[in-house]
Amino acid sequence: MQSSEEKLKLLRASMKEHNVGAYLIPNTNPHLDEYIPDHWRIIAWLTGFTGSAATVVITDTFAGLWTDSRYFVQAEKQLTGSGFILMKPVIPDKKDYNVWLVENIKQGNRIGIDGNIYSIDRLRKTKKLLNGKDVSIDIDCDLISDLWADRPALSGSPAFDHPVVFCGKERSAKISEVREEMKLMNVDYHLLTSTDDVMWLLNIRGNDVKYYPALTAFALLGDMQILLFTDENKIPPKLAREFDKLDIVILPYEETAGLLSALSADDAILITPSTTSASLYNAIPEGMKIIEEISIPTRFKTVKNKVEIENITKVMVKDGVALTKFFFWLEQNSGSLTMSELALAEKLNQLRMEQENYLGPSFSPIVAVNEHGALPHYSATSETNSVIGSDGILLIDSGGQYMDGTTDITRTVAVGRPTAQQKKDFTLVLKGNINLASAKFPAGTKGYQLDILARQALWKEGLNYGHGTGHGVGFCLNVHEGPQSISPVAGDNSKTPIESGMLISDEPAIYREGEYGIRIENLILCYEDEETEFGRFLKFDTVSLCYIDKSMIDKSLLDREEIDWLNSYHSEIYEKLSPSLSSEERKWLQEKTNPL
Amino acid sequence: MQSSEEKLKLLRASMKEHNVGAYLIPNTNPHLDEYIPDHWRIIAWLTGFTGSAATVVITDTFAGLWTDSRYFVQAEKQLTGSGFILMKPVIPDKKDYNVWLVENIKQGNRIGIDGNIYSIDRLRKTKKLLNGKDVSIDIDCDLISDLWADRPALSGSPAFDHPVVFCGKERSAKISEVREEMKLMNVDYHLLTSTDDVMWLLNIRGNDVKYYPALTAFALLGDMQILLFTDENKIPPKLAREFDKLDIVILPYEETAGLLSALSADDAILITPSTTSASLYNAIPEGMKIIEEISIPTRFKTVKNKVEIENITKVMVKDGVALTKFFFWLEQNSGSLTMSELALAEKLNQLRMEQENYLGPSFSPIVAVNEHGALPHYSATSETNSVIGSDGILLIDSGGQYMDGTTDITRTVAVGRPTAQQKKDFTLVLKGNINLASAKFPAGTKGYQLDILARQALWKEGLNYGHGTGHGVGFCLNVHEGPQSISPVAGDNSKTPIESGMLISDEPAIYREGEYGIRIENLILCYEDEETEFGRFLKFDTVSLCYIDKSMIDKSLLDREEIDWLNSYHSEIYEKLSPSLSSEERKWLQEKTNPL
Repeated sequence: MQSSEEKLKLLRASMKEHNVGAYLIPNTNPHLDEYIPDHWRIIAWLTGFTGSAATVVITDTFAGLWTDSRYFVQAEKQLTGSGFILMKPVIPDKKDYNVWLVENIKQGNRIGIDGNIYSIDRLRKTKKLLNGKDVSIDIDCDLISDLWADRPALSGSPAFDHPVVFCGKERSAKISEVREEMKLMNVDYHLLTSTDDVMWLLNIRGNDVKYYPALTAFALLGDMQILLFTDENKIPPKLAREFDKLDIVILPYEETAGLLSALSADDAILITPSTTSASLYNAIPEGMKIIEEISIPTRFKTVKNKVEIENITKVMVKDGVALTKFFFWLEQNSGSLTMSELALAEKLNQLRMEQENYLGPSFSPIVAVNEHGALPHYSATSETNSVIGSDGILLIDSGGQYMDGTTDITRTVAVGRPTAQQKKDFTLVLKGNINLASAKFPAGTKGYQLDILARQALWKEGLNYGHGTGHGVGFCLNVHEGPQSISPVAGDNSKTPIESGMLISDEPAIYREGEYGIRIENLILCYEDEETEFGRFLKFDTVSLCYIDKSMIDKSLLDREEIDWLNSYHSEIYEKLSPSLSSEERKWLQEKTNPL
Repeated sequence: MQSSEEKLKLLRASMKEHNVGAYLIPNTNPHLDEYIPDHWRIIAWLTGFTGSAATVVITDTFAGLWTDSRYFVQAEKQLTGSGFILMKPVIPDKKDYNVWLVENIKQGNRIGIDGNIYSIDRLRKTKKLLNGKDVSIDIDCDLISDLWADRPALSGSPAFDHPVVFCGKERSAKISEVREEMKLMNVDYHLLTSTDDVMWLLNIRGNDVKYYPALTAFALLGDMQILLFTDENKIPPKLAREFDKLDIVILPYEETAGLLSALSADDAILITPSTTSASLYNAIPEGMKIIEEISIPTRFKTVKNKVEIENITKVMVKDGVALTKFFFWLEQNSGSLTMSELALAEKLNQLRMEQENYLGPSFSPIVAVNEHGALPHYSATSETNSVIGSDGILLIDSGGQYMDGTTDITRTVAVGRPTAQQKKDFTLVLKGNINLASAKFPAGTKGYQLDILARQALWKEGLNYGHGTGHGVGFCLNVHEGPQSISPVAGDNSKTPIESGMLISDEPAIYREGEYGIRIENLILCYEDEETEFGRFLKFDTVSLCYIDKSMIDKSLLDREEIDWLNSYHSEIYEKLSPSLSSEERKWLQEKTNPL
């Protein structure tokens, strides 16, 4: 195997040959997805850094990697000896790779980018910042394919139907509704680039991406036909026949740009600039009217339908049973078994596998002991793999993909006796979690307004956490799903009003570097509460079901309402999970959930 | 006097003569100020509508006035028989006058606007929306001056020095600091268009505008000289000599555009698009580098200096004494005197006049009985002027301009026995006020994050209010001052981080149409609290000093912390105000402020 340094040397030679002064590599795929097949993990292959957020810039004298603060520790380690240096922008937006380019690019240089994996949004930003510089950008510049000899192929395993019993709506009905909306928006075509948009619309799932049951595909909707660009061999005959009935035509994945370029310039097309690659964008015929908006499926699928909501509540029971069995097993065996972080993650996955319709983890689980918990996105490896001792704090953030829903839950539990500071921290985080989960708010309220509810108890004590509070969650799709979010930053997502039917995470936390991390995460589902003369009001229902470790709670810090909330939540957990537990487990859960 | 209908007829004739298909009138002055001299109150003269927010559009068949929901009731009344119809956009931004123009303007039409009172920001928006339409915009189109025979002249009263004992910093020091910042921003010139920016920078005040001690003036800062465009006759000789020493050159107001156009195209100029008129903007030489940002004085003056903060705390005592004497007088005499809304406003102003360094009201006071209180911007007139009866709720929102600061405070008090619903509403509003005032938050927190703190108690009961929660407050300047605000909308102002030294209002409310309105408003001053490993944390100090009517409080709805807050606030009020009260008033205040 080549070292990163060797690969870098070969890449620089290729840059020279192609007259490229700076080569820019993003960490995504042609769909601008978050979870990507190994085939597209160019940065991991080239630099050794395996985090999800990264951009690499290479010149003849510089090779740097930009990521965000979650990954600084991990990147520092993984980049050692790679020839790449870690760029640590203190204010992420102000010192990103674009700014570096503006300040360091040489006059007359050509910047090379593979436009298939660089969104038109991003390209515009880069161009805007470089405006006035004597540089050019070549977006037809894939220098990687020729160098990466043992590049993993895209998976060959087939897609499958996602039946209405799970997803609650026939694909024909979804297609009609999206077409209705297209008419209202006066567009003739709608290009779906984000993989999960295509999955949702066509009620299909696949096996192309880890943590996310997706088939790599683009779709182009017209008013009569849908062109589905994917590997035809992955569509089983029965599904192909269903598609045929609905005038869904399967075409080779590679022909997407070609077909786009053949559209009539008199028509209008709806695209989403953040998930449309610069190459696809450039394929749209000159003069065609381009409407740039969030995609219609993204808006529609975030509001879960009645069947999906019923399934989510069922899936939460299954997931809660697996978690309860896991924590029971952990407490029974701690001390007698050697339990490493990796072993615990594996055990939890096994218990989820016992549940019906389980497909696999919804992301790389975080099982972190003590100081590892202070790294928000810690992922145990064979090198870091700590063993649970007799004292400490264990943070477990995990989730599952089921045919009937997607889960994401974090629990922090004490192993042995927690310190007073740990209990105080835990209780403040719990207060934040409850405060957001109990919110009642008028329709139209945005995520950036609600964020403070999860932080207020921490702020009062001079504490805080450096990430957002909540993300949308897909339905048997990406565990991180737009368009809504709960964050202190008023960005595109947190500006989306929270609506009834949206599923969102509620995950306040505290990280004490070198000591421990505490995070409590539940999924909360928004529902209609009441309509008054002041408008429609909404509330959240906490749908995740797993006990909260009372040994970590300093009861004196909770007020009456918070104690009532916890007791009622615990009683719901016992009621819903106990029928699926053994009598031993049941007895144990009763203790864990009896009133505080 | 001509009627609105007659004026409209003449204006239409002038439009025809000048080949103008649609004439557009904003409600502002060449500084895009909020409070404007009568000379610029074109819309009030033309239509009879006296509210502060308005835009008028006139074509040969249409004459409409746009305002916001605060003014719907008032506008409906004032426009009756005027020939103008009230446009009530349900979603203000989506259906403003620009959208109306797009939908209704005739092909080939010419739109006339007086570019002296239309900001370049607004012009760009109008142009953008009309993009693709076959229409032209003429911004040199003042059709009013010729029609308005008895137009009020601009005031002739002189400007005066605002001494350092009040404002805390020599004008020479302010000028140096602004020039330092200009250097950092690489600009050669800084055009100050907003009147209060000029007042702050030069430590002067004037008498040109009601509610706001301002001199109408522009300023152009260079690295050596400052050009001050104003009426030279209003600058007293002593001040003129001071200005001369600092190379501040006084030029005729009318020459602003001409001087701007004479700048070198090789230089860079800093302007603020929202307060720069399209006419001034167009005067900037072609090719000159224009930096568009919030002005430096706006950023600097919002952070009050040490002397200003000391003066603010003193001014609050004076204002609190006037308010206490007022409410004492009201309670002693209610029943025996006939007290109309207008008479109460006058009485309160008289009591403020007894205080040292008082200049006048900082805005048109709102004295509103019962259902009038449900109109957030109600202003009593001789027609609406209610008399205080033996039962009801009285909402008084008022403020003063003092040489040593600006105040803005709202109290709602019971006349007689409040109902249970009134007490509940009042207590929920009070909880919101206290919750925001007690907030502790990390540096960098924005107003849109804090807004919910004032609403949460109301939302829990399905209640809400339709305006923002807080605005910045000037120092012997505009009572509404940017750049910060506390609002649910993440706009330019609410995106400004709240910083130590900022003075902001905290004014949650509830309005029950046809019944009553309740608002509790204090000014809160941000200060540094502590620095922890999680960063700098800030808090607010409530600086307004006037008792909160305990007879309106339902104590069972307050928690321990809220009761403690109120008791401590009341004890501070008694301590600070009682030395300036008569023994009778003191005794009365003691009762009003003894512990709940």
